[in-house]
Amino acid sequence: MRNDQRAADALRPITIEKGFQPQAYASLLITMGGTQVCCAVTMEPSVPPFLRGTGQGWITAEYGMLPCSTSSRMQREAAKGRSGRTYEIQRLLGRSLRTMVDLALLGEVTLRVDCDVLKADGGTRTASITGAAIAMRDAITRMHREGGLAKMVEILPVAAISAGIVDGQALLDLDYSEDSTAEVDANFVMTGDGRWVETQCTAEGKPFWPEDFGKMAVLARKGIDELFTLWAQ
Amino acid sequence: MRNDQRAADALRPITIEKGFQPQAYASLLITMGGTQVCCAVTMEPSVPPFLRGTGQGWITAEYGMLPCSTSSRMQREAAKGRSGRTYEIQRLLGRSLRTMVDLALLGEVTLRVDCDVLKADGGTRTASITGAAIAMRDAITRMHREGGLAKMVEILPVAAISAGIVDGQALLDLDYSEDSTAEVDANFVMTGDGRWVETQCTAEGKPFWPEDFGKMAVLARKGIDELFTLWAQ
Amino acid sequence: MRNDQRAADALRPITIEKGFQPQAYASLLITMGGTQVCCAVTMEPSVPPFLRGTGQGWITAEYGMLPCSTSSRMQREAAKGRSGRTYEIQRLLGRSLRTMVDLALLGEVTLRVDCDVLKADGGTRTASITGAAIAMRDAITRMHREGGLAKMVEILPVAAISAGIVDGQALLDLDYSEDSTAEVDANFVMTGDGRWVETQCTAEGKPFWPEDFGKMAVLARKGIDELFTLWAQ
Amino acid sequence: MRNDQRAADALRPITIEKGFQPQAYASLLITMGGTQVCCAVTMEPSVPPFLRGTGQGWITAEYGMLPCSTSSRMQREAAKGRSGRTYEIQRLLGRSLRTMVDLALLGEVTLRVDCDVLKADGGTRTASITGAAIAMRDAITRMHREGGLAKMVEILPVAAISAGIVDGQALLDLDYSEDSTAEVDANFVMTGDGRWVETQCTAEGKPFWPEDFGKMAVLARKGIDELFTLWAQ
Amino acid sequence: MRNDQRAADALRPITIEKGFQPQAYASLLITMGGTQVCCAVTMEPSVPPFLRGTGQGWITAEYGMLPCSTSSRMQREAAKGRSGRTYEIQRLLGRSLRTMVDLALLGEVTLRVDCDVLKADGGTRTASITGAAIAMRDAITRMHREGGLAKMVEILPVAAISAGIVDGQALLDLDYSEDSTAEVDANFVMTGDGRWVETQCTAEGKPFWPEDFGKMAVLARKGIDELFTLWAQ
Amino acid sequence: MRNDQRAADALRPITIEKGFQPQAYASLLITMGGTQVCCAVTMEPSVPPFLRGTGQGWITAEYGMLPCSTSSRMQREAAKGRSGRTYEIQRLLGRSLRTMVDLALLGEVTLRVDCDVLKADGGTRTASITGAAIAMRDAITRMHREGGLAKMVEILPVAAISAGIVDGQALLDLDYSEDSTAEVDANFVMTGDGRWVETQCTAEGKPFWPEDFGKMAVLARKGIDELFTLWAQ
Repeated sequence: MRNDQRAADALRPITIEKGFQPQAYASLLITMGGTQVCCAVTMEPSVPPFLRGTGQGWITAEYGMLPCSTSSRMQREAAKGRSGRTYEIQRLLGRSLRTMVDLALLGEVTLRVDCDVLKADGGTRTASITGAAIAMRDAITRMHREGGLAKMVEILPVAAISAGIVDGQALLDLDYSEDSTAEVDANFVMTGDGRWVETQCTAEGKPFWPEDFGKMAVLARKGIDELFTLWAQ
Repeated sequence: MRNDQRAADALRPITIEKGFQPQAYASLLITMGGTQVCCAVTMEPSVPPFLRGTGQGWITAEYGMLPCSTSSRMQREAAKGRSGRTYEIQRLLGRSLRTMVDLALLGEVTLRVDCDVLKADGGTRTASITGAAIAMRDAITRMHREGGLAKMVEILPVAAISAGIVDGQALLDLDYSEDSTAEVDANFVMTGDGRWVETQCTAEGKPFWPEDFGKMAVLARKGIDELFTLWAQ
Repeated sequence: MRNDQRAADALRPITIEKGFQPQAYASLLITMGGTQVCCAVTMEPSVPPFLRGTGQGWITAEYGMLPCSTSSRMQREAAKGRSGRTYEIQRLLGRSLRTMVDLALLGEVTLRVDCDVLKADGGTRTASITGAAIAMRDAITRMHREGGLAKMVEILPVAAISAGIVDGQALLDLDYSEDSTAEVDANFVMTGDGRWVETQCTAEGKPFWPEDFGKMAVLARKGIDELFTLWAQ
Repeated sequence: MRNDQRAADALRPITIEKGFQPQAYASLLITMGGTQVCCAVTMEPSVPPFLRGTGQGWITAEYGMLPCSTSSRMQREAAKGRSGRTYEIQRLLGRSLRTMVDLALLGEVTLRVDCDVLKADGGTRTASITGAAIAMRDAITRMHREGGLAKMVEILPVAAISAGIVDGQALLDLDYSEDSTAEVDANFVMTGDGRWVETQCTAEGKPFWPEDFGKMAVLARKGIDELFTLWAQ
Repeated sequence: MRNDQRAADALRPITIEKGFQPQAYASLLITMGGTQVCCAVTMEPSVPPFLRGTGQGWITAEYGMLPCSTSSRMQREAAKGRSGRTYEIQRLLGRSLRTMVDLALLGEVTLRVDCDVLKADGGTRTASITGAAIAMRDAITRMHREGGLAKMVEILPVAAISAGIVDGQALLDLDYSEDSTAEVDANFVMTGDGRWVETQCTAEGKPFWPEDFGKMAVLARKGIDELFTLWAQ
Repeated sequence: MRNDQRAADALRPITIEKGFQPQAYASLLITMGGTQVCCAVTMEPSVPPFLRGTGQGWITAEYGMLPCSTSSRMQREAAKGRSGRTYEIQRLLGRSLRTMVDLALLGEVTLRVDCDVLKADGGTRTASITGAAIAMRDAITRMHREGGLAKMVEILPVAAISAGIVDGQALLDLDYSEDSTAEVDANFVMTGDGRWVETQCTAEGKPFWPEDFGKMAVLARKGIDELFTLWAQ
């Protein structure tokens, strides 16, 4: 039995509060159990140098954690610079979100999502992707509504979830206590039509069998299908 | 008339949510109108090098803003390093909080307050001081309750508020729209017994008369007396 | 009695050596007792990005200390980056000097003052402001004389001085030994016509009464009136 | 047909030159087609702070590229700092290599592998893992031979390879021209006994079906089984 | 007798492998005894700001060492920034190479040489100059062949070598063991027609007589005349 | 005729003001024509890690320039980090000063000289060495006088001067206008007994003949012999 009585294939309770940062172009606060992430989109009327003059847009992401979001305080990155983990998560966020739309249809604008973790209890990178994707949809919808996009672009919904092997059993949506004792740790980013955007799966301590990966992929698919109900809000 | 119909000497609505970051030693979320700051205290069983072996404790503070807390996005300090403004606010926060207790009575521990602005609409540094002081009181109370302090130490309540001269009139607790058009901008940190901890007053554009300073000091005293009602929660 | 036999309201001896750095646009060496600061103005034919195309000029300042200017050597900021204290002083210097002229009348030029402390014995930031203001006046006069300003602009003289409460007594122009034992420490930047540009007043250790602030303001006014005699040289 | 006439499931030619950097504790130069990586192990008689006093060892890795290893010159990281990509690869390298031995049996030593890419034609991170794992084995063998390990520790061979979907077809061991046109890009780190250490699979542009992932995993297994023949040299 | 049986005025064995980094504009690997340096030239169609619009070209150089090129591992400059020694060598390299051609005849292009030390056994800076000069000649020849230079420019061959005083005797081309015990250490950069480009000579521990300098200069002249045979390859 | 009417072998007027920074362990201000450098020694009761426990002392140096010391303002190194030129000069300073005494006789102390250029008109690095050597002698004498050295150590006087070839003629002690048009530029660090500590000689634009080097060495010897008269003050 999991420590919050969840079934192996159950998500933690999820809520989304839209408009959390009223000065952002689009924003929300996503809460998954004890994990809480503020996702805010900025719309900038320019693109990075390698895209200038191409007519194409860009989507990028930044990630941060409040120092006291975790059980032992994290040193502020303003003091020590970004960690390797932060770079890795930012790159994953950017790649995942760029899958959602055909960038050539956005025009030369940059949509930048800031994901800031207010409370961390496992799954902060997957909650960030899930929340950021919805905020991105809201931002593009606003661009269209306010005349910044002549024609609404097609948006491919994406969401992400973690899975892992704990004590030999495959579990969905690990909290921190589960994550820190998992033998295998995986993240899945998927679309609503059954496809995958990205997967990362890592042995913690000892290698795992391909079958373990398969079990986690099945759990992730089920969890992500549930996450897409958030898109209807 | 002010744009939110407040009287010249009125504070904006204030609320405090205790325990906002459950993994911190003490934490709260302070909301003053459209400004919202997370204040969290960490207790570390060591002191900076210049205090080692003295038996004395230390209180320090760090300050940050979420990139989308402001109307135009601020670049993340993890990327560009801390700004001069951030250093200035951190130093003010630390000095103000160290006035609250006799550091020699704490033992060799560091109490570190992180003040992170989630939403900024003027007065973020004074809201940070006001919130951090209460969180600091809660942290010291917890130290005593959990046996980390043999004897409870005396705590001097401090709070802070801004005032300014806008269109020739002295106003209390400026919001962002008032702050950006103020001719004079002042911050006051005061105690509950009528004394001052710090004051900073700056001409924005043209010099001001000593009488203007006096009017702002009177408003600040009134506002800070009201802020101390938050200490009873 | 003060350790150099001064009266409570007396300044230390002051001298100004004009043209100290002959390759600067304007420069001087200001000596106040044991404190000595080199102030040099550079005139650059451009402005920061936020002013381009506005026709308006800009005034800014940088501050540094020679490593052996103080009693215990300070690490060089080239090695460790600027400290919070340096940022705070630079911001104060810039704000104070920008009060002196209507920037819109300068044209798109930047006047940059470098204040470098050769010897530090208290009051380096106020000596920097006092010296830099005179160097700035000299630079603007040179701009006009050499044809860079069609019409001479009006210059508002500013100067700065410290005051403090030491052993319960208000003193003007603290030297380092007084400053390090002061209970309250204040800096005042004032104009020649009785107005204030900026004031900062900080409790060192314990809060102070508003009356203490008043006594220091009176001393500062007297001291600054004397400093303006330097403008006639 | 692939541009070097390889079959879809064929590796590029591979060679290993042992002792490439004679002053390292163990070193080799691995060449896979047009990709060439120098892997060198340093043995340091200490461990990071979080392991001190535990009796346990540590394995870590650093990665770099010579500026002219790629077709357009890369700016040197000594000038601009490490990129997000470099951090990501270093973390992957470290995790993969730490799977090879029980760190508790090494004693308090750090084995650090430097992987420096001399020539880059795709697959530099997987070639780095494959080469570094062999260099690590050689270093541990030397430790044992020279008396630094009382008892030889069991070593789990690991190796890594890339796979991808290009023009709808699954291909093994992509070169740069294939990698830059791939629709899906995957890396696999596997052991000799059929297990997985890590997998990362990313859509380049559009999402992919789980079946595509399966095909790449089959190719990777075949390729890695061939790579283990290098261990017999 | 030297530890590799060389005569006092003998160079170590030298080889040059052209085209070492096939993606560079020109490249080679120079080996002098146990020292090995990769020299690669990049041709960039732009010049630094101070040369824009002058029609003149620029030649510059960067230098690095692989972490395990030396007997005790060097920390990577990506982590700690460039050392003073690296800056000094880069400046020497740039000055020496800019002597080779009249920059005004190159047009507005930058030729950048990267010298990366794969193995270090003394004399890495002089081997870098010697190798980089030949790679530079090859790059300029290619520019002319491919139409980037209307008229071939005259190239002044330069090469460099070290000399030293060890146990009172002047020796040519010191290896690491000799260099670390030398009383005097000198580097010479010379042209093929008997002139000098640069010389640096340093006492290690105690001062030396001008006659010692003269003996080293004679050895260097002899060594450099032999190095120019590499230009015929 | 030189622009200040000096003979080819004449030094500029030199003065030394002892005790310029009264809070330093030893200090002076050296003026050579239009060049002025503050040299200050700090005595620290510890040594760098590589010397701990050896009983040996250390001598090191840092160098800086005030932003307005030069004709066009130099950006502050606190903002941009040290330049390659600064590192090169610091290394030269350190090596030259360490030749003066047997470090093994100092005990485990570090003598650190800060050389800060207040005014720059050519020859700042040689003036720094000449001034720093005298300040170092004064510091060691003070250590002995105050009991920090049981027995006075022997001090080898060193001094430095520049020479150059301008319009085909060898000149001693170049000022900035000469230095910027010189064809060859050399610095010599010499002892009082006819020996050399270091020499650096660089072609500016085109190579030079060994005879030119010889002429400059003769001038330098004459100049340095004159500089040693400063040691008698």
